[in-house]
Amino acid sequence: MSLLQDVDTFTLARGFRATATACGLKPSGALDLALIAADRSCSAAGMFTTNRVKAAPVRYNQRILEHNAHSIRAIITNSGMANACTGDQGMADAEQMAALTAYGLHCQPDEILVLSTGVIGKHLEMDKLTQGIAEVTAITATEDTPSAARAIMTTDTRPKVAGQDLHIGGETISVRGICKGSGMIHPNMATMLALITTDASIEPSLLQQSLRYAVQRSFNRISVDGDTSTNDTVFLLASGASGTYITENELTEFNKALTEVCISLAKQIVNDGEGATRLVEIIVTGAVDEAQAHVVANSIARSPLVKTAIHGGDPNWGRILCAAGYSGAAIDSDRLTLAFGPPAEIVTVVEEGLPTDYDERDAATALRGNPVYVRLDLGLGAVQTTVWTCDLSTDYIRINALYTT
Amino acid sequence: MSLLQDVDTFTLARGFRATATACGLKPSGALDLALIAADRSCSAAGMFTTNRVKAAPVRYNQRILEHNAHSIRAIITNSGMANACTGDQGMADAEQMAALTAYGLHCQPDEILVLSTGVIGKHLEMDKLTQGIAEVTAITATEDTPSAARAIMTTDTRPKVAGQDLHIGGETISVRGICKGSGMIHPNMATMLALITTDASIEPSLLQQSLRYAVQRSFNRISVDGDTSTNDTVFLLASGASGTYITENELTEFNKALTEVCISLAKQIVNDGEGATRLVEIIVTGAVDEAQAHVVANSIARSPLVKTAIHGGDPNWGRILCAAGYSGAAIDSDRLTLAFGPPAEIVTVVEEGLPTDYDERDAATALRGNPVYVRLDLGLGAVQTTVWTCDLSTDYIRINALYTT
Repeated sequence: MSLLQDVDTFTLARGFRATATACGLKPSGALDLALIAADRSCSAAGMFTTNRVKAAPVRYNQRILEHNAHSIRAIITNSGMANACTGDQGMADAEQMAALTAYGLHCQPDEILVLSTGVIGKHLEMDKLTQGIAEVTAITATEDTPSAARAIMTTDTRPKVAGQDLHIGGETISVRGICKGSGMIHPNMATMLALITTDASIEPSLLQQSLRYAVQRSFNRISVDGDTSTNDTVFLLASGASGTYITENELTEFNKALTEVCISLAKQIVNDGEGATRLVEIIVTGAVDEAQAHVVANSIARSPLVKTAIHGGDPNWGRILCAAGYSGAAIDSDRLTLAFGPPAEIVTVVEEGLPTDYDERDAATALRGNPVYVRLDLGLGAVQTTVWTCDLSTDYIRINALYTT
Repeated sequence: MSLLQDVDTFTLARGFRATATACGLKPSGALDLALIAADRSCSAAGMFTTNRVKAAPVRYNQRILEHNAHSIRAIITNSGMANACTGDQGMADAEQMAALTAYGLHCQPDEILVLSTGVIGKHLEMDKLTQGIAEVTAITATEDTPSAARAIMTTDTRPKVAGQDLHIGGETISVRGICKGSGMIHPNMATMLALITTDASIEPSLLQQSLRYAVQRSFNRISVDGDTSTNDTVFLLASGASGTYITENELTEFNKALTEVCISLAKQIVNDGEGATRLVEIIVTGAVDEAQAHVVANSIARSPLVKTAIHGGDPNWGRILCAAGYSGAAIDSDRLTLAFGPPAEIVTVVEEGLPTDYDERDAATALRGNPVYVRLDLGLGAVQTTVWTCDLSTDYIRINALYTT
């Protein structure tokens, strides 16, 4: 089944509708408020930033999902300001956003999840939000996911959507998500948010298990600059509108479709990194366990020297071995084998710790593709992993140095 | 006692002489071979890279110091190639460098320490080194530390030296060091090397203890891009030429002088970072223990978003709190207090987790000084630490992307 990625024709799963408006939080006048609402109560699951500095909506949502994950009706999301480092007032504002949304949708405040993304340390402009929330909750006939995908953007250059279907007992179940993230984790102006819906019927603990599985294989495997935002959140809502139940028996199938959607969204974030010109896929094989594979892959993905070399199309393998070496994993430098290039044109540059007599031009060609494939075999075991990052360009510096609070 | 930092008049401690030559390893014809030789056997201590991919000379030196730390006569150092990822041949070459130096100095090969820095994955050009080593060991009358400090450079823009004296029982003891490092840890072309001498008489285990103390407070507190090289090494040789013994009783005094020398050298490395325009001093206070203080300080020092903001002179405090938050340390975001500026002009921008009503212009001025001071109080305990880094500029990317192997 091929992925749905066309923004203009994109819709959420059955049982959900999306609306959006511009309430004035963004000085540009662009869309800045999105509502995803369900016809009836949904199961909900969430994964949140591990940052100790958590924005008010993150703490609010964690509290809601602890006791009410079986009965969620909507997610209200604003862009423009992150409601982070805003103290008690920030929490009161998040609660107020939920209350206003609940009022408009005729449900309870604790059936509403709340997301904010944008500038840190500024209080939400509640007058504008009050107006905006009244507007988006009043629209009941329209379904406009493309606008919602645009309304949650901050420094993103394009909206991001992904959908996949699966078949259970002759019935079609769909998984449909939107996300935002400027590629770089950009804590002062942005964050990474994903809002995923399905029309399957799944009880909350199973839904959470499924979301954790998918996030670990997607959003937790992308790195742009190693900065983890105060607001990062992934939500998964299940409406049950398909009438099909997912139990332990169908979970593998469901996890597969959900993971495909999450990987697509995650790669779209890295691809849209500010200043990024190329997607980089780092494949670490031959590890003794998952932890080792991850530590090595993430160390390579995070190395500014590796990322600048890739930006320059330079097959600078010493930097990659070096990043593997200081990762903290117990690797053996005499067993490392490193190659570049897509499956059909693999160029091996290091074999068992020593450079091969590879052709410099072939290696340079492999480093100039998009995506760029970096393949490191540790020669120690049978476990492998893949992570995604992007190159590091002068534009990254320019955008981040010149952005003024 | 003020530090000695003038290159042109710099000499090593009594009992040592330095010589240098250009043996042709650098295509430019610049100095690329340095010898530091002692009149008689020295105590020696060494600290080495924690990278699992260790260059041949690192492994060679570790072996020598294990059994012969009481009797070292010289350090031979080449720049141009790192002798890393060079397999068995690399180890044979390192041993041969030691043997050639021992032959020229009429001592035993296991009395020689060996350093290499430069390109990874290329074998040493032993014909040129044979010639060069014969040359530098033949010069016995000259003492030319400034040339030795230049000969160990790779991408450094200037030589780095530091000296300090201390007085024990009416006698003067000197600590004199040279180092190289392009600021960034630059594994394909460079590494961080420091060669420190003293004319004190200290037995090897005490010398090692002293070096560990100083390195933990200096070279282990600098970060440019988080990349740890395959060759990083700090050596400390004690000639005893002053006739003054350092025992446990005098160790505090000696540690103080040695640490001052190491901090000066470490800061010179950060200051000379490719593309760096400003030194950044990150002071974390109010931690419960050293580990917590370090984890937070290093997370801030490593964040590309913090470093680009400083490059742009932007008081983007959200990025600093965010980096503290994702450091992994158990901080409390409601207790964080953040300030910028030198001691006399401190501008507090966040107090107990919330922004103050600071003057934007004052904060921007503080961020445009050199050094830039970042002061984060965790509000949890009484422990503090300081680390140093530099800003991240477009020149860093340009230099690293365009460098071709």
